[in-house]
Amino acid sequence: MTRVAGCELCELAAPAVFENDKFAVILVDDANYPGFTRVIWKDHVREVSDLADADRLLLNDAVWQLELAVREAMQPLKVNVASLGNVVPHLHWHVIPRYADDAHFPAPVWAAAVRATEPKVLEERRALVPQLAAAIGRRFAKQ
Amino acid sequence: MTRVAGCELCELAAPAVFENDKFAVILVDDANYPGFTRVIWKDHVREVSDLADADRLLLNDAVWQLELAVREAMQPLKVNVASLGNVVPHLHWHVIPRYADDAHFPAPVWAAAVRATEPKVLEERRALVPQLAAAIGRRFAKQ
Repeated sequence: MTRVAGCELCELAAPAVFENDKFAVILVDDANYPGFTRVIWKDHVREVSDLADADRLLLNDAVWQLELAVREAMQPLKVNVASLGNVVPHLHWHVIPRYADDAHFPAPVWAAAVRATEPKVLEERRALVPQLAAAIGRRFAKQ
Repeated sequence: MTRVAGCELCELAAPAVFENDKFAVILVDDANYPGFTRVIWKDHVREVSDLADADRLLLNDAVWQLELAVREAMQPLKVNVASLGNVVPHLHWHVIPRYADDAHFPAPVWAAAVRATEPKVLEERRALVPQLAAAIGRRFAKQ
């Protein structure tokens, strides 16, 4: 496995809600986006298309399972899925539950914020995160 | 196949560089991003996880082949891949070649622009788009 000194995803300290020898699933601590999750590939690979076929299909399956877990627990209006990596070019996928009243909707979360979501609503969504962790645990334990 | 009146992707008019009965691959006309491409699923489906398994794997393979074509022809520093659909909730994937001197780098293309790329550089990249179309044709014809 390739590791690159100074790469924050090679040196990932965040506790994973699930991990195996290939990838980790983490809950992202974003005040505006409870239920924001990532799949982080463990090997320091730059692009999806740098993966061997079996690994690519494994990662794709993980992102799909994570999308299902996010939908099940967070009941979003829409799911956003993206692999960008311009800042940290170490392969990872964002899976983000979106709602009509979230800080950026309908723009991507990387655009300028257009509103502040009601604190009570954010609190209700935050309260669903343990169910999200449980859903991830159930789905990934089966693999 | 489900079609929704008023959905701009159900009523897609842009010519596809490749299409079959399941999906179309298009070149996006974005002045800042020559080589920006999309895979558009033809059926009006909302999320990746609404697809049957065979269709999901077919779409995943198409996005991967498109990433390879973009890398081959456009030689980007990084590829960004995303399925958002907040504005048009009809399943589609963005595949975007990124460069250190592009309008938003290292931010996602949906953030505020931070620079104007040199017109000469954009022109050089635009000149690669026919090669991208050819690479897409070659890769997808094999399927």
